[in-house]
Amino acid sequence: MQRTLISKTLNKVGQEVVIEGWVNTRRDHGKIIFIDLRDRTGLLQVVFLSLEEAKNLRSEWVVEITGLVKERPEKLVNPKIATGKIEIEAKSLKILAKAEELPFDTGVENLNVSLPVLLDFRSLSLRHPKNRAVFKVQETVISSFREILTKLGFTEIQVPTIVPNITEGGSQVFKIKYFENEAFLGQSPQLYKQIMVGVFERVFTLAHAYRAEPSVTTRHMTEYLGLDAEMGFIRDFDEIMETVEILLRGIFKAMAEECSEELEMFSAVLPSLSDKIPRLKMREAQQVIFERTGRDNRNEPDLEPEDEREICRYVLEKFKSELVFITHYPTEKRPFYTYPDPKDPDYTCSFDLLGRGLEWITGGQRINDYQTLVDNVRKWGNKPEDFAIYLQAFKYGMPPEGGFCLGAERITMQILGLENIRQASLFPRDMERIDIRLSRPEK
Amino acid sequence: MQRTLISKTLNKVGQEVVIEGWVNTRRDHGKIIFIDLRDRTGLLQVVFLSLEEAKNLRSEWVVEITGLVKERPEKLVNPKIATGKIEIEAKSLKILAKAEELPFDTGVENLNVSLPVLLDFRSLSLRHPKNRAVFKVQETVISSFREILTKLGFTEIQVPTIVPNITEGGSQVFKIKYFENEAFLGQSPQLYKQIMVGVFERVFTLAHAYRAEPSVTTRHMTEYLGLDAEMGFIRDFDEIMETVEILLRGIFKAMAEECSEELEMFSAVLPSLSDKIPRLKMREAQQVIFERTGRDNRNEPDLEPEDEREICRYVLEKFKSELVFITHYPTEKRPFYTYPDPKDPDYTCSFDLLGRGLEWITGGQRINDYQTLVDNVRKWGNKPEDFAIYLQAFKYGMPPEGGFCLGAERITMQILGLENIRQASLFPRDMERIDIRLSRPEK
Repeated sequence: MQRTLISKTLNKVGQEVVIEGWVNTRRDHGKIIFIDLRDRTGLLQVVFLSLEEAKNLRSEWVVEITGLVKERPEKLVNPKIATGKIEIEAKSLKILAKAEELPFDTGVENLNVSLPVLLDFRSLSLRHPKNRAVFKVQETVISSFREILTKLGFTEIQVPTIVPNITEGGSQVFKIKYFENEAFLGQSPQLYKQIMVGVFERVFTLAHAYRAEPSVTTRHMTEYLGLDAEMGFIRDFDEIMETVEILLRGIFKAMAEECSEELEMFSAVLPSLSDKIPRLKMREAQQVIFERTGRDNRNEPDLEPEDEREICRYVLEKFKSELVFITHYPTEKRPFYTYPDPKDPDYTCSFDLLGRGLEWITGGQRINDYQTLVDNVRKWGNKPEDFAIYLQAFKYGMPPEGGFCLGAERITMQILGLENIRQASLFPRDMERIDIRLSRPEK
Repeated sequence: MQRTLISKTLNKVGQEVVIEGWVNTRRDHGKIIFIDLRDRTGLLQVVFLSLEEAKNLRSEWVVEITGLVKERPEKLVNPKIATGKIEIEAKSLKILAKAEELPFDTGVENLNVSLPVLLDFRSLSLRHPKNRAVFKVQETVISSFREILTKLGFTEIQVPTIVPNITEGGSQVFKIKYFENEAFLGQSPQLYKQIMVGVFERVFTLAHAYRAEPSVTTRHMTEYLGLDAEMGFIRDFDEIMETVEILLRGIFKAMAEECSEELEMFSAVLPSLSDKIPRLKMREAQQVIFERTGRDNRNEPDLEPEDEREICRYVLEKFKSELVFITHYPTEKRPFYTYPDPKDPDYTCSFDLLGRGLEWITGGQRINDYQTLVDNVRKWGNKPEDFAIYLQAFKYGMPPEGGFCLGAERITMQILGLENIRQASLFPRDMERIDIRLSRPEK
C-alpha cells in the first residue's frame, strides 16, 4: 500500500492507511501508547492499543505505521494541530531507523535551549516545527523574489564566488590559495550583475557573499545569501526605488498568503506600508533627529544605529509606515561605482531602505561612463587592470543603470522578529563556528 | 513617451514609438544609415534618412530612438529576425552611452574568435545572441529543475560553501584562511542535503561546488553550479532513478516549449528517450563492451571514457535511447556514505546516468544507519568528530534515503553540443583564469 502524507489523512476516516515519519512525542496511558507522528506535512496522533513492538518507541525514531483513520470524540479533539479531529489506530508498525536518546526535549512548543546548544545540535534542532517555519518563510521570500522579478522582465543569472580582486573593502575578505596564486571569496556579486546588464538589461542573482568580519554580532555572519538585482535603461534613480517597492509589496503578499501559520508561530506581523514608502535624504533625516532629540549628528557622514531607530519611529508616527528610504549618502562613503547626484555631487543617488530600525535593502544608481569609472577605481586606491572585465562592460557601451540587494537571512530575521541572524541560517558561519565550534589553534 | 520593447513593435505599424538598446550592426547606403538595434527582446532595423547625429553611430553604442513603425516592402522582409517585416524610421536620436572600437566583429552569426579571446572579452562576447542563447537554455534547465521538484514535494534549501572538512577527496580542495583556522570550499552540498532530509524529507539546492583540479580539460572548471536533490522514505534504489527520469522528461519538455529558437541556433536536438531509460549494471556494461569490441575491462573498478562512449552507442542501437543508467559501481570506488547492495555488498546502489557518451547525472541510495556511517568514516580514513553535524542527523533517526546531482554547465553543454564547458559558464574559472588570465608568480 502507498504512503499517505499526514496532511492527506483528514478525509480518509474509516480507511486503512500507511503513514511514515518521526516520533515527535510519546505519551503512555496505562497500557495504551499514544504518539504524535511527524512528517513533512504535519503531526498526527497514533494510538497503539496493544502492539508489543511499540513499547520501545522513542522520540525521533523513524517508523512506518499501517492503521485505521478514526474520528476522535468531540472532547478529545486537539485544536493545536491540523489533524486534531482524527487519529490513527495502529495495526502494524515497522521501524525504519532508531534514534539515540535526545540531548533535550524536542516535543515542546518552544525549544528551551541556548543558541550555542541549538547550533551544536543543528541537525536535530532544525527538525523542530518552529525552526522549520523560519526556513519556510525564507523560501517564500526567495521564491517570490524570483517570481516578481521574472514577471518584470528580469533574467536569473549565476555568477562566480571566487574572485580575482577585492572590490568593496580591505581587510574583511577571505583569501584562497588558488594553485600558485591568491584569490578571494566575493563580498558581493555587484560587479558581475552590473556586467550582465550589458547582456540581459535586467538581471537578478542569488549569490553567496562572504565577509571576514573579525567580530561576533547578532546581525552578521561570514557567509550569507544575497538577493541581488540590477536594471538598465532606468529613467532615473527613482525607478530603482519604485522597483524595490513593487518587490516588497509582492513579497509581503506572498507571505500573507502562504505563511500565515508560520507568522503566527512567531506572533509576527508584516510591516505596515503607507501608499508610497516615504523618502528622506540623509541630511534631512539628521535634521529631523536633531529637532526631535537634540542629538546633533548633522555633519556625520552616515546614520548611527540609534539614528536609524529614531528615524523609523518618526516615519511610523508621521507617515504610518514601518519602512523608509534614506537617500543621498555622501559620495566619499559609498563604493567607487556609485552615481553622484548631478545637482549635488557630494551626495550620491543611493539609498538604504530601513525597516523597524534596521537596514533591509541597499541600492542605488551606478556610474555608467567608462572613463569616470576608470578614474574612480584609481581615486579609490585600486588598479584598473584588476577590474579589467568589469570596466570592459562599460568600455563597450552601458546604459544608465542601478540596482539593489537584500540579505535573505536579514529579511527573514526582520519579518519574524528573530533575536539573532543565526536563527535564520540553516548552518550559520561566524568566526567562532563552522558547524562545530572552532578551537583556537595553539600558537 | 514610454519605451517600447523591440518584441512589442510588430503590432504598432503606423505608430510612433521610443525604443532603446545597443547598435548591433550598421550599414550605409549612400546617405541613408541603417542600423540593427538590439535590446533584451530581439533585433529591429532602424533607418536614419537624414539625422546628422546618426553619422557617428558605431557598434555597441547605447541609444534611445524615437521613430515611426513602418511595414517593409515584401522584397525587403528579413526572415532571419522576428521583426523582419517592419522597420523604424528614426525621428530623433539620443545617445545614452558610447562604446570604444570593438576588438572583433560582433555583428555576425558566429563569433569568429578563439575561446581564450572569447573569455578575455567576456563582457562583450556574452552580448552576442548565440552566447545569450546558451544562458537562456541554462536558465530553463534551472527553473524547470526547481519547478518539477517543487511539484514533487521537494523544498528548496540554501546550504553553505565554507566547510570545516574535506568530504570527498584529498588534494583537490581549496583552502581558506579562516581567521586563526583553516577551512575549505565545499566540493558538493552532499552532506548538508542529506542532513536536511531529516528536516524536510525531500530537498533540493543549487549550490556552487569547488574542485581544485590541477589540470585543464574541456569538461572541468574550478567552480560550478550543482543541481542537487535528496529524498527520504524511498521505497528502494529504483525510486531515485524514477525521479531522475521524471525530472529529465520535464526538463526536455520545458526546453522544447521555451527554447526551440535557441536549440535551432546550435542545431541541437533533444536526446531521444525510450519508454523507460535502460539500466545496466557496470559489470554487465563491461561484458557488453567486451563482446562488442574485444576490449576486456571486465575487472576494472570503473568505466573508462571510451567505455562510456561505447555503451552509449550500444544502448542507442539496441534500445533507441540516448540515455542509460549504469548502476552498481564497486563499493570501494564510491564515497563512504554509499549504500551497498544487500544482495551483493561489494557493489553499491549507485548510478551514473550517461548521455551521448558522457556522465550527466550521478546518484544513489545512502547508508542511513548511524553506526555503519561512523564505522565507514573511519574505514575511509577520516575522523568521526570532523563529521559531527552530519553524523548527528543519523544518530537521531534518518529514514532510507538517496539522491542525485547534475552540473548546470555540464547539462547545458551536453544539450547544446558545446565543445567546451567554459562556453556554458558566464565567468568560467580554471587554474589559468579568473576572469583575466592568471600570471604565474615568480618563485
